[in-house]
Amino acid sequence: MKKHNFSAGPSILPQEVLLKASESIMDYNNSGLSLIEISHRSKDFVDIMEKARALAIELLGLEGKGYKALFLQGGASNQFLMVAMNLLEKRAGYLNTGAWSTKAIKEAKMLDDIYEVASSANANFNYIPKGFDIPSDYDYFHCTSNNTIFGTQMKSFPKTDIPMVCDMSSDIFSRTIDYSQFDILYAGAQKNMGPAGTTLVVVKEDILGKVSRKIPSIMDYKKHIAAGSMFNTPPVFAVYTSMLTLEWLKGKGGIAGIEEENEKKASLMYSEIDLNPLFTGFAAKEDRSNMNATFNLTNENLKETFDTMLKEAGISAVNGHRSVGGYRASMYNALPLDSVKALVEVMSELESKA
Amino acid sequence: MKKHNFSAGPSILPQEVLLKASESIMDYNNSGLSLIEISHRSKDFVDIMEKARALAIELLGLEGKGYKALFLQGGASNQFLMVAMNLLEKRAGYLNTGAWSTKAIKEAKMLDDIYEVASSANANFNYIPKGFDIPSDYDYFHCTSNNTIFGTQMKSFPKTDIPMVCDMSSDIFSRTIDYSQFDILYAGAQKNMGPAGTTLVVVKEDILGKVSRKIPSIMDYKKHIAAGSMFNTPPVFAVYTSMLTLEWLKGKGGIAGIEEENEKKASLMYSEIDLNPLFTGFAAKEDRSNMNATFNLTNENLKETFDTMLKEAGISAVNGHRSVGGYRASMYNALPLDSVKALVEVMSELESKA
Repeated sequence: MKKHNFSAGPSILPQEVLLKASESIMDYNNSGLSLIEISHRSKDFVDIMEKARALAIELLGLEGKGYKALFLQGGASNQFLMVAMNLLEKRAGYLNTGAWSTKAIKEAKMLDDIYEVASSANANFNYIPKGFDIPSDYDYFHCTSNNTIFGTQMKSFPKTDIPMVCDMSSDIFSRTIDYSQFDILYAGAQKNMGPAGTTLVVVKEDILGKVSRKIPSIMDYKKHIAAGSMFNTPPVFAVYTSMLTLEWLKGKGGIAGIEEENEKKASLMYSEIDLNPLFTGFAAKEDRSNMNATFNLTNENLKETFDTMLKEAGISAVNGHRSVGGYRASMYNALPLDSVKALVEVMSELESKA
Repeated sequence: MKKHNFSAGPSILPQEVLLKASESIMDYNNSGLSLIEISHRSKDFVDIMEKARALAIELLGLEGKGYKALFLQGGASNQFLMVAMNLLEKRAGYLNTGAWSTKAIKEAKMLDDIYEVASSANANFNYIPKGFDIPSDYDYFHCTSNNTIFGTQMKSFPKTDIPMVCDMSSDIFSRTIDYSQFDILYAGAQKNMGPAGTTLVVVKEDILGKVSRKIPSIMDYKKHIAAGSMFNTPPVFAVYTSMLTLEWLKGKGGIAGIEEENEKKASLMYSEIDLNPLFTGFAAKEDRSNMNATFNLTNENLKETFDTMLKEAGISAVNGHRSVGGYRASMYNALPLDSVKALVEVMSELESKA
């Protein structure tokens, strides 16, 4: 039985992407060679890399606006350091909306001064702070668009004249926003884009080259851009699979097309959480994430029954993160509406039983 | 037709590894889920990571000797920086034997003082320098065991009381040497171990924690060790495929078993280069690599004929690197002896034609 996969990441990918990725391991494009045993400098792979980079820029609506897309290694965690290495001269402002923001702040502090412009730590990050000031003499402002663990999502972004950097690991390509309001955005592939092992970094070139620090080569966005995202051997399989997912997304009508589906899924999910007296949502309503719905049972005694029912329905990976508890339904781009329907059905069946 | 794949990297992997890797993309272990869409914190993946780490230590003969194995991201290029971040306090000594050593030196120089103990740059790196001194007050000594581009290999390593670091990207797991003479060894997976996208780092724990520098978390070996190589989301597919290759190697009798095959392949290859008057070897004989044989035609007019014959025989990726020219036959662990036989046959056929 194919499961309903609500994993928070690495997470569900489209079946047609998995099939092509699997086939490429045995024989890429009838070449008689596996995708993972050819040179990354071969025409076959260079074409894949260029297509992936172009699709990312196209889907985000950033063509002709001075941006370059890179597929790097090291995860968002490595970007916490790279962003600061490339942009931090004196002081930067960070919005703290959860575990990942906290880590980004900690890592950047290794290099220089970081100021938290606002934080929702006092409420276990169940909301997004609003109405804070961003000093105009800071080097840049950093935020996290979606908080996987807590199930919150920034619905709008502050206006500022300084460069804006956004960690979009868990909601990139999921909604139509103006991506050109950011100067750097980055996202680990393993939510809406591909397998773990590559990170998309989209950089507006003209903000680079302004710090006095000596930047190590492997940390230097300019060097990665100059090398066409091939400064060193790229993570071939992760880039190829990401390219396949971006192609799939384009076929779905791009971000606008998938946004419509994502809204249906989230709306169905949150309706059930709000209407079913056995459940209560964790995140503040106006900040609820369309990607990760966090919720708890109002009566913990029902946990065993509910867990058994979930298992019987083939519903996988809805356990909440340890810092929130309860349940979390991650509804990334590739999750079908039918999976949400199946989950909601179990929730409502629990109500009728209880 | 399945090709004879002499690619220098990413390079050939065992067919049984490719098959299992391909199957895991559609359904891992009859779980109903793809390997690349499950949490890296799931028991399934934690088991894979632990097995891969244990196999690396076991195969290298480092059990019970204070070493930890990590599967990181960023390639050997990232290790050039990490090694210096973790070990460099005042000055380190580097042996320069080729393009990758040169890059390692350049990157470490970003942080502090680096001294080239010896270099073969003056002869386009066609030999390994010997008889150099390593000052005993340096923080560490760094070398590259095998030079993919130039086809040279260190047959022995200097004796020194300071920590010894070795980039073994292109010959790890290929020969029985005393791996415990090194304090850190690292290797990009894409030659003898797996697909591009992960780097094996083996660290003797007691050499860490001795520098005064603040090490960024993502660069800190201690943090990666404490987290069991899961400081952040690991490159799941690359680690799994590496584990499969290490299992395959164990089944082959480990490093001793494969070494015997590698010696047969190299011996056959170099015999042909030496005996066939149409070819000349690039590297100094005593420093010839058992992994990468570099050679040139003595008569460039035969190039077109030879290239056509190679193609017809299904021999792939034997073109030399641009800095050496000519040809390069990479004979990593997974390359069958039959592939070398096929290449040698074409070389000898060219001789009989000419």
